[in-house]
Amino acid sequence: MPTLGIDLGGTFVRAAVVDAKGALISSAKAAVMDRTPEGVVETIAQAATEAVKTAGGVKVDGCGVGAAGQIHKDSGVISVAPNLGWRNVPLGEMLKTRLGYGVKVVNDLSAAAWGELHAGAGRGAQDMLVAYVGSGVGSAIIAGGQLVNGGGGVAGELGHIKVVPGGRRCGCGEHGCLEAYAGGHNLIAQTKELLASGNSRILESLVEDNPDRITPLTLETAADMGDPGAKEIYSRAAGFLAVAVANQVTMLNPARLLLGGGVLMHCPGIRLRVLEGVQAYASRTSREGLLITDAELGDDSGIIGAALLAA
Amino acid sequence: MPTLGIDLGGTFVRAAVVDAKGALISSAKAAVMDRTPEGVVETIAQAATEAVKTAGGVKVDGCGVGAAGQIHKDSGVISVAPNLGWRNVPLGEMLKTRLGYGVKVVNDLSAAAWGELHAGAGRGAQDMLVAYVGSGVGSAIIAGGQLVNGGGGVAGELGHIKVVPGGRRCGCGEHGCLEAYAGGHNLIAQTKELLASGNSRILESLVEDNPDRITPLTLETAADMGDPGAKEIYSRAAGFLAVAVANQVTMLNPARLLLGGGVLMHCPGIRLRVLEGVQAYASRTSREGLLITDAELGDDSGIIGAALLAA
Repeated sequence: MPTLGIDLGGTFVRAAVVDAKGALISSAKAAVMDRTPEGVVETIAQAATEAVKTAGGVKVDGCGVGAAGQIHKDSGVISVAPNLGWRNVPLGEMLKTRLGYGVKVVNDLSAAAWGELHAGAGRGAQDMLVAYVGSGVGSAIIAGGQLVNGGGGVAGELGHIKVVPGGRRCGCGEHGCLEAYAGGHNLIAQTKELLASGNSRILESLVEDNPDRITPLTLETAADMGDPGAKEIYSRAAGFLAVAVANQVTMLNPARLLLGGGVLMHCPGIRLRVLEGVQAYASRTSREGLLITDAELGDDSGIIGAALLAA
Repeated sequence: MPTLGIDLGGTFVRAAVVDAKGALISSAKAAVMDRTPEGVVETIAQAATEAVKTAGGVKVDGCGVGAAGQIHKDSGVISVAPNLGWRNVPLGEMLKTRLGYGVKVVNDLSAAAWGELHAGAGRGAQDMLVAYVGSGVGSAIIAGGQLVNGGGGVAGELGHIKVVPGGRRCGCGEHGCLEAYAGGHNLIAQTKELLASGNSRILESLVEDNPDRITPLTLETAADMGDPGAKEIYSRAAGFLAVAVANQVTMLNPARLLLGGGVLMHCPGIRLRVLEGVQAYASRTSREGLLITDAELGDDSGIIGAALLAA
């Protein structure tokens, strides 16, 4: 029987009806206007109703929710959801009461990895690592066909491993995290710092007085054009990412490594450095038989994965 | 019903009869004289027979083997066992034929972690990381109550994550591995290099012309006495270990972190740095609720774990 998948973001809720094989039957999107738990539950219910209606009123049984944050997998309690400002919200129970069927709540990256595992680039794999480098840096781990959640539901925080102990301050409040150097937001921030320093003619020419035009690709372009400051930021970020991903391959020995997120998809230089890094730095035994590929479901991976987790 | 646990080393085979709760009923030890697969199977069979006889001829059903190396968990084939010089030995099948009951073969650190999980310091935990720093550096990962083996059976190679890309040569043939700086063998090797350089009076006084007396604790003592060269080697090793273990806590979010191995047990300074490092460098969310403790079964953890895996 089809199930519902929910992608709960800070701005929008997406709901989709997904069949047992992971094919998306219908979807609907609703803006999050009221961020209280009650308001969000109502928005989810509306989007869900809309998706079910679009699917011709098909009967669904079960609902999976993927949400950014720290989630207690058994209880469905969201311990912390930074983009909604939530702490200890029993979303699973609330939504179950509202919708009338079982609800599972998981981390958004875990949901996306589960979608890729069953309906995307991970099909057939039992041991998989998904590395995402977008605005932030994260990962999801599948071991023996099961999601690795960790005792507190926050396994896979690749962005918060320390690459420079005591180094650059990260959005999480700690120092020296991988994300502080290599996440998209921080690549842009570092590029703006370089621009503001007045030490980069190349960057000035690329940006033309509009720092809001800066993307991680602007940095890559400036580095490719030989800008020393851009090269330094860029090489450091790419190098840290390469070693970090390689080290996780060494630790987890995945049969498949999936790459996802805007920075890895749209900055070919960083992507190449990560691919080369895995070859150069992962232990020989851990990369025997390793297949590296792109995540293939794009924005639908999380919604499909959440639905399949509830099936 | 009791099962047999086998600890297969390069020099000795230990066999034990273990009850379903992980209590050791009897054990026997035999030297490995003939390192051919056939010879080792015979030695195992002898030790097993001896252990069963010592247990009063109790009936056993099933046998688990823990062996250093790369092991394919489903087939029981040992792909590589460096200390026996083996490649692609179907030990599980061979031993099953010889003993007449089911045999499981696993990596020695995985067996030890399984023993600690069910009969030692890991009781009650579902998500656990065991970090071993002895002659070498290794780890074993338990997620959701299951061993994380990896696609090729080599997950947990903590010693071979890269801490200095292109750095000190490791016994594995690669460069810059954690083990090359912080494993006991390499701590001793680095201490001997320092001694040979003639730049350490303190070390000379501690060693008294007998470099064979050097242990990792000699290095720690020299560092504590203020020897600059010893301090450098020691601080570097402790720092790399601290960040590496902390980063794995961030990635895996274990509820329990077990420390084991001679270096962590007998060098209080290194141990303290690792404990402090987890507090300082693991992400805040990943270390909420984390319990750090010592492995408690000592040399019996592997044999007990192997037996329990076969139960």
